[in-house]
Amino acid sequence: MSLVIDALAQSILFRDARTANAFTDEPVTDEHVRAIYDLVKFAPTSMNQQPLRVVLIRSQGARERLVRHMAEGNQAKTAAAPLTVILAADYEFHRELPAQFPHFPQAKDVVFAEREVRVESARFNAALQVGYFILGVRAAGLAAGPMTGFDAEGINKEFFPDGEHGVLAVVNIGKPGEQAWLPRLPRLEYDEVFTTE
Amino acid sequence: MSLVIDALAQSILFRDARTANAFTDEPVTDEHVRAIYDLVKFAPTSMNQQPLRVVLIRSQGARERLVRHMAEGNQAKTAAAPLTVILAADYEFHRELPAQFPHFPQAKDVVFAEREVRVESARFNAALQVGYFILGVRAAGLAAGPMTGFDAEGINKEFFPDGEHGVLAVVNIGKPGEQAWLPRLPRLEYDEVFTTE
Repeated sequence: MSLVIDALAQSILFRDARTANAFTDEPVTDEHVRAIYDLVKFAPTSMNQQPLRVVLIRSQGARERLVRHMAEGNQAKTAAAPLTVILAADYEFHRELPAQFPHFPQAKDVVFAEREVRVESARFNAALQVGYFILGVRAAGLAAGPMTGFDAEGINKEFFPDGEHGVLAVVNIGKPGEQAWLPRLPRLEYDEVFTTE
Repeated sequence: MSLVIDALAQSILFRDARTANAFTDEPVTDEHVRAIYDLVKFAPTSMNQQPLRVVLIRSQGARERLVRHMAEGNQAKTAAAPLTVILAADYEFHRELPAQFPHFPQAKDVVFAEREVRVESARFNAALQVGYFILGVRAAGLAAGPMTGFDAEGINKEFFPDGEHGVLAVVNIGKPGEQAWLPRLPRLEYDEVFTTE
């Protein structure tokens, strides 16, 4: 059974792409980031809610404020990456919903009135978008180093003091450097993942 | 700024791909599903934990058991789709972790001893994999109709009575049929999503 995207795209996005832990000094520009967003923004979310928000860490001060909340094993590579981004869920995404989902403008107040409901929906849908974003980085010819090893509460207090956002992942981005990754780890077999009813 | 995957792959995966609500009668075979998994299994998860589990709904009985837990607006299309799958997070993914993440086999008992920690990690990482899976369906030349409008507790009791899994999404899959979708909804502007520090 053949796929309809070509072998090169399969390779770039999935088969040969790897999580990078080291990068060259080549910068990642805002134009790169715009090209990534202009591709991945089309991928679907529930009711088109698009809760992902992204903080680009550009200043040395912001990088230091971030690195201190990373797990020890993630600090050096985050300090050195050409670009690091914080990917977060916006728990107040419903404010944009009447414009983004005009079929059901009441959803803002009917479905998403309670913060608890918004948090669950935002975290799930922003996680979908984290997946899309990682693949978008690869589609731009760059390597992603997504990380979940950090003090989430610390990052939230530092970067989202309004309490309206929750960090989901921090991603280093750049051209892969020397010894950027270890050998690929195994994957579950089809029969370990899929069952039929 | 150009992307490194070609325009056709960009179109198939993102730009022209759409969430489908109607499908032709053409079957979706297990070979299709295997080709999708053989591509998307390579995309990254935290500590390679791969918590996504997939139930293929093939029998009429299973379809009826599922449809009754779908939101009213999702019932008819789920009853009629060539293939419907339940995408769930496995809260006991840590059992496979020593084999899947041999760098740190103690993670099973040190990091993931508590169910609450496993549930949060599994739900986030399986959501990443839901995003990868949707794009994999498209990479196989099929259309996906992902849905989150259902009674999650009802589906969990019906299909995962062991209490070890939590449904995240139900996805209809097939070749798009007549009037498969409405006009595309808007997307947030770059400046509504990205900030710089």
